Amino acid sequence: MALVVATSIAGAREAMEVAPKGGSSRGLVPTMGALHEGHHELIQVARRECDWLAVSIFVNPTQFGPEEDFDTYPRDLESDLARCRQLGVDLVFQPGRDEIYPATHRTFVEIETVTSHLCGRFRPGHFRGVATIVLKLLNILEPDRAYFGEKDAQQTVVVRQMVKDLHLPVNIRQVPTVRDTDGLAISSRNRHLGLRERKAATVLFRTLKEIRTMVLQGARDAGQVRRNGLRLLSREPLVQVEYLDLVDPETMQPVSRIQGPVRAAGAIRLGRVRLIDNVLCEDRDG
Amino acid sequence: MALVVATSIAGAREAMEVAPKGGSSRGLVPTMGALHEGHHELIQVARRECDWLAVSIFVNPTQFGPEEDFDTYPRDLESDLARCRQLGVDLVFQPGRDEIYPATHRTFVEIETVTSHLCGRFRPGHFRGVATIVLKLLNILEPDRAYFGEKDAQQTVVVRQMVKDLHLPVNIRQVPTVRDTDGLAISSRNRHLGLRERKAATVLFRTLKEIRTMVLQGARDAGQVRRNGLRLLSREPLVQVEYLDLVDPETMQPVSRIQGPVRAAGAIRLGRVRLIDNVLCEDRDG
Repeated sequence: MALVVATSIAGAREAMEVAPKGGSSRGLVPTMGALHEGHHELIQVARRECDWLAVSIFVNPTQFGPEEDFDTYPRDLESDLARCRQLGVDLVFQPGRDEIYPATHRTFVEIETVTSHLCGRFRPGHFRGVATIVLKLLNILEPDRAYFGEKDAQQTVVVRQMVKDLHLPVNIRQVPTVRDTDGLAISSRNRHLGLRERKAATVLFRTLKEIRTMVLQGARDAGQVRRNGLRLLSREPLVQVEYLDLVDPETMQPVSRIQGPVRAAGAIRLGRVRLIDNVLCEDRDG
Repeated sequence: MALVVATSIAGAREAMEVAPKGGSSRGLVPTMGALHEGHHELIQVARRECDWLAVSIFVNPTQFGPEEDFDTYPRDLESDLARCRQLGVDLVFQPGRDEIYPATHRTFVEIETVTSHLCGRFRPGHFRGVATIVLKLLNILEPDRAYFGEKDAQQTVVVRQMVKDLHLPVNIRQVPTVRDTDGLAISSRNRHLGLRERKAATVLFRTLKEIRTMVLQGARDAGQVRRNGLRLLSREPLVQVEYLDLVDPETMQPVSRIQGPVRAAGAIRLGRVRLIDNVLCEDRDG
């Protein structure tokens, strides 16, 4: 089937009427556009698992703070559509801001605890915006499965918490982070990095891998491991650290004693670009 | 069909499988039980309009403040079931608190502006709890129509705002308030009134009717009308006034100049019992 592009909710619902029903599965990959190799992987995994696949493209204003990069967030619709067509997507849903957030919009979803640390602490209101837009998209497109990238692991935890608490009939899938050959996690924001910043940015993943090694080698004092990680990051003068933490992968709460799987997560700034990354530190044999 | 009583989400979903589908309509009357003539009317209207009808019974803890009457809120399941059976309800959904709010529950729906006055001002968190439980019930029972009483007019506005903002495929119906012969709005809490309080309580509806008369006779200064109403209420020494306001019926914001339909709404206390009521002041010919 050819790709349908819907720019309104009514248009999306019309496209959904021809989607296969009953026993077959619908997939959704929610994105903010500027599709890259990370999205490519999400769409490929979803395409394999679902009979009908929608990709939403919407730069969601409510998840950006007033000082953040909503205005400069990359937008590249033509190349996004070409990629979706190439990957066999059935529907691209690309709604207008006025239909998703009309002037009368007043409803927000708040998720406690899992949003209190990491990005939730440094971007107040961010996950409120994320949860609200994801709930809207789930209600509009009614997928059986929705796909999120592990780079935004806290986002997946937030969405899963919402889905469970609101009894939504959707399966949330997390797809491993796609990395450049030097390890940098692929992100739409990478294109804003200068050459020296681009090189310095790799320190984040190197640090996270080092933390994983320490944990797998038996380190138990999370504070000690974290201080070692911060020392590594501080060797890169272009990098400002926003946070570096070891958290429980289910609750996203910082741990002090490492007693099971932990997620090491960090956020750094290079000039005006903010990057995040994380790795699961888990002994797969134990 | 015989009444099915489900005490779990899985049980409700099983009952829904035998519900008529495709073109036929499902109704939901969400209640906190202790069903009275007001609920009776809601259920009768819903029964006429829907092919399959669910009544939920759940005293929702998140809409009660810490100092409020959650513990003493009336519960009367046997008589509730008898009434539902008599009215031809298909499903009574009476979930346990642990399934609706497990210890891990973290998600709440917040609705701005329409909750900032009237009950929203005097019961902080009340409509957050209402919106959250209604969204859960809508997601679990997937009705085409849900029914609410006009006595809780602000609640209807809040639910309609949520339904619109979250793109939920449900029609919210408001059913007129049922009153005792002396005008007192029927409420589960009326049974906690002593004989003298019961008599004094009628002053609220008399005041609201008086306000409507003033508005229909051309009063335009809402402050003046409100002061007249407060004077009437103050003649009843057993009554403490929580609020008395004239608000825009769509936004629930107080008006200063009366230029179209307004809703007059009040909340009073008689001892430990809190009662609310409201009337729409609208010139049906104009």
